[in-house]
Amino acid sequence: MGAVVLSGRELASELREEVTRRAAALAQRGRPVRLAVVSATDDGASAWYVRSIASAAARVGIVCDVLELGPQAGPERITETLRTLSADDEVHGIILQTPLPAGAALEDLASAIVPGKDVDGANPLSLGRLAAGLPAFAPATAEAVVRLLEHHGVPTAGRRAAVVGRSTVVGKPVAHLLLDRDATVTVCHSRTRELAEVTRAADIVVAAVGRAGLLTADHIGAGATVIDVGTNPTADGGLVGDVDPAAAERAGALTPVPGGVGPVTTALLLRHTVQAAEG
Amino acid sequence: MGAVVLSGRELASELREEVTRRAAALAQRGRPVRLAVVSATDDGASAWYVRSIASAAARVGIVCDVLELGPQAGPERITETLRTLSADDEVHGIILQTPLPAGAALEDLASAIVPGKDVDGANPLSLGRLAAGLPAFAPATAEAVVRLLEHHGVPTAGRRAAVVGRSTVVGKPVAHLLLDRDATVTVCHSRTRELAEVTRAADIVVAAVGRAGLLTADHIGAGATVIDVGTNPTADGGLVGDVDPAAAERAGALTPVPGGVGPVTTALLLRHTVQAAEG
Repeated sequence: MGAVVLSGRELASELREEVTRRAAALAQRGRPVRLAVVSATDDGASAWYVRSIASAAARVGIVCDVLELGPQAGPERITETLRTLSADDEVHGIILQTPLPAGAALEDLASAIVPGKDVDGANPLSLGRLAAGLPAFAPATAEAVVRLLEHHGVPTAGRRAAVVGRSTVVGKPVAHLLLDRDATVTVCHSRTRELAEVTRAADIVVAAVGRAGLLTADHIGAGATVIDVGTNPTADGGLVGDVDPAAAERAGALTPVPGGVGPVTTALLLRHTVQAAEG
Repeated sequence: MGAVVLSGRELASELREEVTRRAAALAQRGRPVRLAVVSATDDGASAWYVRSIASAAARVGIVCDVLELGPQAGPERITETLRTLSADDEVHGIILQTPLPAGAALEDLASAIVPGKDVDGANPLSLGRLAAGLPAFAPATAEAVVRLLEHHGVPTAGRRAAVVGRSTVVGKPVAHLLLDRDATVTVCHSRTRELAEVTRAADIVVAAVGRAGLLTADHIGAGATVIDVGTNPTADGGLVGDVDPAAAERAGALTPVPGGVGPVTTALLLRHTVQAAEG
């Protein structure tokens, strides 16, 4: 009884090995791979995430510069920083960390990241190229969803997928990636009526809202594959997804939180960076 | 019995009146509105469509230049033409007509149209901005779908919409526009299994494949609203949509072909052009 656990650790480890090899080859040719993370917040969770990227980068041989602009940085300052990094030949990947200062929108500011270095697919041009089927970096979290499905041999072609959440960084790009893989994709959100009825009809359910317990066993069709993108902090300092653990009784397979989408996301960010450096 | 006919003629006429007023105001201030259509084909249907745009433009007081590059034009020539027009202060809107010469992709070439003049939303950046909720011109056909729904008072928030077809020029942008209007959107395509089951569950069905008779009465839920984007030539020189006329028996409302989406599309192209000129 209970769902198969779709761990992301094995895939993340494979990806990191591959990235380590490719980064070493570049370093040998005198081109050390370099990632820049721009942060304009004093949010604790964000700082923790940035540190985890920096240490993951270091482990695979990628230099990671963290540029802390502080929560007072205006949009001009952030944009200017992104432009400078975009023009810097020694920087291969650029991430603009969220949250941003009030009034600044990621989609807007990220337009200043040149698409070839937009390793987290934040520039609207990257999203448009992705939607149009042109080469582009997808947001790493969105790509992690489809890579996990591939890795665990979950077929998508002709299957029904329900994506819960319509954010620009996860829900929408996941929908495009699943559509590219021939799934019939439904995007659900806060205004969706009878959410459980819609998600129950899906072979693959992607939960990407950021609310603990959003999806219960009632939302999951028997045997469905559930990818939980949520990372919600708990009172005791832990992390839970958007899917209630009870859903494991109905699902055929389910990603854990932590240890599912998260590690694959970080590994893909690094893979994008090495790819940008090779390009 | 039978479905309400959702004509596009009244809305198109309203839009044209508005555009005529706005274009006249600009002309009075010494800024005649100018649209450029770039064509690189000798396809007859395309030539007919270009002429219809040019004559519609003339009727609302917009100058329309048709640049016929011929079917031998290479991608460089087309791109160069689009760049020149993008830089020309007297040109306000640019349309790259399809079909394009073999090997040339609209999404690729249209990247040379500056977004502010991309009145048919063909540049992937326009699609990305649309998906990210930033100001952008939507492809006119896609916008015509949601404007027709609005005009005829068909609610979208919380309703289920099925978009059949996943093209970059219609299906995908329609999905984003409906999602923006709080519909729960399913994108279906050639690999969708049990298409009729999926579309029957929808309150709004958008047919955008380009195959006569693709959707029959069996595909339509009782009382659903059907927007038929298809324009398929018939043997006798007429035009039919993607939806079988028999579907009118089940649908609550249905757009006619011709006279539904088509006239609204042309009027929106002109409105985008005048908006670009004002901008």
